[in-house]
Amino acid sequence: VETEDRIFVHERAINESDSVGSGTRIWAFAHVMKGATVGADCNIGEGCYLEEGCVIGDGVTLKNGVSVWAGVTIGDFAFVGPNAVFTNDRYPRSPRAPVARSRYADESWCEQTRVGEGASIGANATVLCGNSIGRYATVAAAALVTSDVADHALVAGVPATPRGFVCRCGRIMPGDRDTCAACGSVYRRCDGRLEWVGDGQT
Amino acid sequence: VETEDRIFVHERAINESDSVGSGTRIWAFAHVMKGATVGADCNIGEGCYLEEGCVIGDGVTLKNGVSVWAGVTIGDFAFVGPNAVFTNDRYPRSPRAPVARSRYADESWCEQTRVGEGASIGANATVLCGNSIGRYATVAAAALVTSDVADHALVAGVPATPRGFVCRCGRIMPGDRDTCAACGSVYRRCDGRLEWVGDGQT
Amino acid sequence: VETEDRIFVHERAINESDSVGSGTRIWAFAHVMKGATVGADCNIGEGCYLEEGCVIGDGVTLKNGVSVWAGVTIGDFAFVGPNAVFTNDRYPRSPRAPVARSRYADESWCEQTRVGEGASIGANATVLCGNSIGRYATVAAAALVTSDVADHALVAGVPATPRGFVCRCGRIMPGDRDTCAACGSVYRRCDGRLEWVGDGQT
Repeated sequence: VETEDRIFVHERAINESDSVGSGTRIWAFAHVMKGATVGADCNIGEGCYLEEGCVIGDGVTLKNGVSVWAGVTIGDFAFVGPNAVFTNDRYPRSPRAPVARSRYADESWCEQTRVGEGASIGANATVLCGNSIGRYATVAAAALVTSDVADHALVAGVPATPRGFVCRCGRIMPGDRDTCAACGSVYRRCDGRLEWVGDGQT
Repeated sequence: VETEDRIFVHERAINESDSVGSGTRIWAFAHVMKGATVGADCNIGEGCYLEEGCVIGDGVTLKNGVSVWAGVTIGDFAFVGPNAVFTNDRYPRSPRAPVARSRYADESWCEQTRVGEGASIGANATVLCGNSIGRYATVAAAALVTSDVADHALVAGVPATPRGFVCRCGRIMPGDRDTCAACGSVYRRCDGRLEWVGDGQT
Repeated sequence: VETEDRIFVHERAINESDSVGSGTRIWAFAHVMKGATVGADCNIGEGCYLEEGCVIGDGVTLKNGVSVWAGVTIGDFAFVGPNAVFTNDRYPRSPRAPVARSRYADESWCEQTRVGEGASIGANATVLCGNSIGRYATVAAAALVTSDVADHALVAGVPATPRGFVCRCGRIMPGDRDTCAACGSVYRRCDGRLEWVGDGQT
């Protein structure tokens, strides 16, 4: 939690949270609600909405038009692409409908979503609540996540299915390699998963 | 139509309509245009845009980032998820293009969309114009609606296809049941449709 | 480049560019950044964001909620539907992540996207960077563009695939016709492409 003067809030943005970390920037037409938790050194794009109860780590990039609802937790250094959409209600109805009123009488309708450290959610992707995105995974643009995504997995499609693996740096890892050609990170493959061994740059 | 003092308009929202019902709340960066009709007790999320000529019933929930165009009618107690998208032009071109100017000389390009009472449009779903969503139907997240959706139907995918049925309360109705395990509503199955019989809670 | 008084900027919009053409209208909660280039007679919908380095031609219509990033070029008279999403980074990571910092040290991560004259990008469509949309092509609503789109092509789906051809005026061209029933434009078919011959209206 930082003092207001160490964060940047665009004059057309609204910040009502006292839990925004140092160095974080909140751009025009974005709205951080009271009770939203945001780490240090984040970039909150234009038109983003951070609801009371959401938790966002350090160094996160939210591109424009992303709403982060109560129940959504975003790990350090994650990326959320433009207009990507989170949810927190699996069977939504208008809470104002008489037939749904009992369901919204308490908070049990709200399901959790977790985005792991360093993961990327592609542009215009949709993440159904109740699922977790692994560390340094990548959800492709326009994908619909309906199940958990493994660490370093690349998933794509509607619904999203595994298509391969990605390095910490974001590059796709060819199936016959254990070292990233772009950044030199070293991995091992184990039980159908990709595990990071070291950065290989020493 | 209510007096201005019985609705809530966030100081960063804009309301230019004199047809907004009592108890309706309009949140930051939303814009209700002159000539938009909005019922009572609605929740108009951040960044929503309600165009002149749209009609929204009572008790409707619009989550963030929803534009409701002329030609779109939303029934009482419907839910529209975040960044869900409506359309009203089947063959869009920029009206400023010389080759399209004659097409936009009158309003015949504008096709109607109807969302039935109590229906839910999932997060980031897209609804092609000229289609109707039935009462208490559910369009899954990220689905693309290209044809009419029956009452109580659950549709999903791109394009959206029927996947089953949902109760008034939003829960999925298993194919072998006529009573909702969550709320007790009673249905009968008839000609491949699900018909509500009673609320079963008496 | 026009003087400020010949463009319309809504009082809740922000225009920081000195390269906006005459007659262009910028609606509420839209933001045109310094260094964005916008032609004459455009309509920039609510909540749009035009980043430094983007280039937009004359007579373009951007519906609500469209972000146009550096690297995106939009031709004259194009249409971009509501909440359609562009990208400019094929392997996105948060630039704040230590593992990605070297990648974002220069601008080489930024890939180009081109939208041809008179083309239409449907509502909620997603365009992967590095691809070009041909002149007067149509990308269907909710489609994901992952490869180049030919002139006059209609593409749809996730990922988008060719489904036929569209006329300059936006109407679908049946496979057995060379003249548009709606506007009279005349085409020839050649090597699986549709080529405009003349407007046929004389």
